[in-house]
Amino acid sequence: MKYLENSGMKKLRLLLILLVLNTFCTSAQNADSVMIKRFFDNALQSDVSYNNLKELCEYAPGRLAGLPAMDSAMKYSLELMKSMPFDTVYIQPCMVRQWLPGEDTSWYSPDGKAKFPLTVDVLGGSVATPENGINAQVVIFNSIEEMKKADPATVKGKIVYFNRPMNQTYYNTFRAYGENASMRVIGADEASKMGAVAVLIRSLCTEIDDFPHTGIMRYKTSEVKIPGFAVSTKDALELDSALVVNPQMKIFLESTCKELPEKEQGNVIGEIRGTVHPERIITVGGHLDSWYNSAGAHDDGGGCMQSLEVARLFFETGYKPQNTLRVVFFIDEEMDQRGGKKYAAEAKAQGEKHVFALESDHGMALPTGFSVDSAVLAKVLLWKDLLEPYGFKEIEKGYGGVDISFLKALGVPLCGLVTDSQRYFEYHHSANDTFDKIVRRELQLGAAGMASLIYLVDKYGVE
Amino acid sequence: MKYLENSGMKKLRLLLILLVLNTFCTSAQNADSVMIKRFFDNALQSDVSYNNLKELCEYAPGRLAGLPAMDSAMKYSLELMKSMPFDTVYIQPCMVRQWLPGEDTSWYSPDGKAKFPLTVDVLGGSVATPENGINAQVVIFNSIEEMKKADPATVKGKIVYFNRPMNQTYYNTFRAYGENASMRVIGADEASKMGAVAVLIRSLCTEIDDFPHTGIMRYKTSEVKIPGFAVSTKDALELDSALVVNPQMKIFLESTCKELPEKEQGNVIGEIRGTVHPERIITVGGHLDSWYNSAGAHDDGGGCMQSLEVARLFFETGYKPQNTLRVVFFIDEEMDQRGGKKYAAEAKAQGEKHVFALESDHGMALPTGFSVDSAVLAKVLLWKDLLEPYGFKEIEKGYGGVDISFLKALGVPLCGLVTDSQRYFEYHHSANDTFDKIVRRELQLGAAGMASLIYLVDKYGVE
Repeated sequence: MKYLENSGMKKLRLLLILLVLNTFCTSAQNADSVMIKRFFDNALQSDVSYNNLKELCEYAPGRLAGLPAMDSAMKYSLELMKSMPFDTVYIQPCMVRQWLPGEDTSWYSPDGKAKFPLTVDVLGGSVATPENGINAQVVIFNSIEEMKKADPATVKGKIVYFNRPMNQTYYNTFRAYGENASMRVIGADEASKMGAVAVLIRSLCTEIDDFPHTGIMRYKTSEVKIPGFAVSTKDALELDSALVVNPQMKIFLESTCKELPEKEQGNVIGEIRGTVHPERIITVGGHLDSWYNSAGAHDDGGGCMQSLEVARLFFETGYKPQNTLRVVFFIDEEMDQRGGKKYAAEAKAQGEKHVFALESDHGMALPTGFSVDSAVLAKVLLWKDLLEPYGFKEIEKGYGGVDISFLKALGVPLCGLVTDSQRYFEYHHSANDTFDKIVRRELQLGAAGMASLIYLVDKYGVE
Repeated sequence: MKYLENSGMKKLRLLLILLVLNTFCTSAQNADSVMIKRFFDNALQSDVSYNNLKELCEYAPGRLAGLPAMDSAMKYSLELMKSMPFDTVYIQPCMVRQWLPGEDTSWYSPDGKAKFPLTVDVLGGSVATPENGINAQVVIFNSIEEMKKADPATVKGKIVYFNRPMNQTYYNTFRAYGENASMRVIGADEASKMGAVAVLIRSLCTEIDDFPHTGIMRYKTSEVKIPGFAVSTKDALELDSALVVNPQMKIFLESTCKELPEKEQGNVIGEIRGTVHPERIITVGGHLDSWYNSAGAHDDGGGCMQSLEVARLFFETGYKPQNTLRVVFFIDEEMDQRGGKKYAAEAKAQGEKHVFALESDHGMALPTGFSVDSAVLAKVLLWKDLLEPYGFKEIEKGYGGVDISFLKALGVPLCGLVTDSQRYFEYHHSANDTFDKIVRRELQLGAAGMASLIYLVDKYGVE
């Protein structure tokens, strides 16, 4: 009987402990869900971030790092942050490349006389064509691998044309992008080694339309730098048809892009000093730069304005973070990531203690969740129930973002906002990425979700 | 030992049975997932449904039941279905109201002289104003309940203006719509009983823009029928400000709408005869009618074209349904649901055996799942793993759709495609519901998900 009694007492005590713990946890969860509801209620009823993004897109479209439009964007952002009750607002200077896109011209000529224009954009970082352009025959490949298998004699003196469409059958369109992007990034570098004079890629775009989609290209191992261009998908189809009829037909390509010496620009940063651990830093950011041909609404003006909205929601709801919150508009994600590298280098040099970094650079569509470093995934998963009612259903192991990726070496847990990908590659890196493609409520939901996650990280930590 | 041996043998036998069952189930699941992948692959690579929708929106915008545009829409749809290898294509005739929207004029005049135009659309089914319009003072209410509490003397002879915005804080915007819709539907009926001369509602729209959003209104118990109008949200804000300055200010409202005798139009139906149970019918549909002011891309031309895409996917993949599949473009969802009622009445009169009905009328945004009758929810949930990779993550108890709802009385299990609601009430019932607001991949994912569900229902049943 004694044993049983003891056992009964033990069970009773355990039950009581569980009950108390449960009450404690439930009331903590309740307080958190009330706070999170305040973030969402406020964000969904405020036009501030939406209107800020509109202004940025109108005031500084084509704000590639190094261009005057980026000076405008930095000025706008600095003033915007200074209008808010941050403890500090500053520019973190860094040197950026000064690559000027110039003007593009292209056409094909089935009979050597009539010229049919092609809508092209030069790829980012490309060299210019010779002064009178390039007029050459075309050789078509479906991939770099296919090209490498070809007889170099069939490539020499020609324009390599990668005309592979994006694979439509993947649910996540980033997967299709990932499969095709290397043709843009290193296609020219590889084609040069086989004697090609230029590279033309079918735009990395899910739709058939008139917008060329540019993006970075890199010269790595080639001795001769040849230029790279992207043609709109609609013109790619037209070109394909013309090439079937006349495979010997020539294409004309001209770009007046050029590269000047590097210049100083920088990250734009606003800081709320932590009330308990001012030395511990949480970073939230997007990248301020866009491609030269784009207003950069989805990529990534929206990510900047969502990050700024996190601070506004803290100010508006009176939430004072225990740790220091830094809102960072990173510079130069698209070309050389100088902003992200500088930010991490400074963090290291100053011996800063970074506890978390969150980036939004996935397009401003419906938020579906967060991708999180595996080291802190289990902790973030504990908050799933709090975020799920707002559509954040997938908390998964994954990548944070390009700009914050350089903090990885410092052991900082990284996280990225994940949004639905169905329409992103209609806009990405093109003149089609305009403010009117932003759905206000999607932008706001993303920002409120980011504020909620940072609130939880700030309050409970992720370690 | 014997007992143990027996027990061991039993366990072994059980294990073997489970193994065989598991293999069987797994291979069935594999075959299904292969089939479902074929539906999605085909849909995502085909522009057919997307282009059909574009044509419908261009050829027959404003296709309210009873209007000539609906005759055009029926003609277009009939020809479209006849171009496909259906076993039967036909019109199921029914009588519809012939309410003609006419022209609307509205302005307010703060000083009785200058006229500031208001962008309004008359509500569906409204009576016209007197020939010279209505020029009257305004009384503002936030709800029907609030109006009912008011002194009728303050309402008599005035225009009742319901200026309540949609609640932005709900994740699901249909909830906010549900809260406000009664002002549109029965606001005039109730206001008339208090002596009002007309009703003006702030449009049921989540955004601040220039589009009035119309919709059905009903006269139920009032002796005097007074007209109803919707004003754009932007003009509602302007009007609110002007009324603060001068609450006695008059508003002018004029509509030349009228109602003619009923006429015959009908549902457009395409049928694939079942290979095993031709007498058992599965229905998939949307509604062909739109509001008079709208191209009806999201509501609900898209739902029709998704339903037709189900058949196309069956034809293309060679899947021959065991049960008869009926693709139905219902008429008159917006006004009196004569199409849905007729379809159910005929089913009953002919003693048809309907095994399942699926509707798409939730906007063409990202599909998130299906809402299903509770009676068959458990069965449909068994297929969740097959649909989840394509974003159909929520299989929940819920409503099927207005048009198929009349089959409920016949005991037919009903189901609705569910899509994300964030941007739907930017478009709904307004001139803003145009084809360019359709995201191709979202339309296609919805259609492929519908085809997949119907394939599973056809193959396994839901009973």
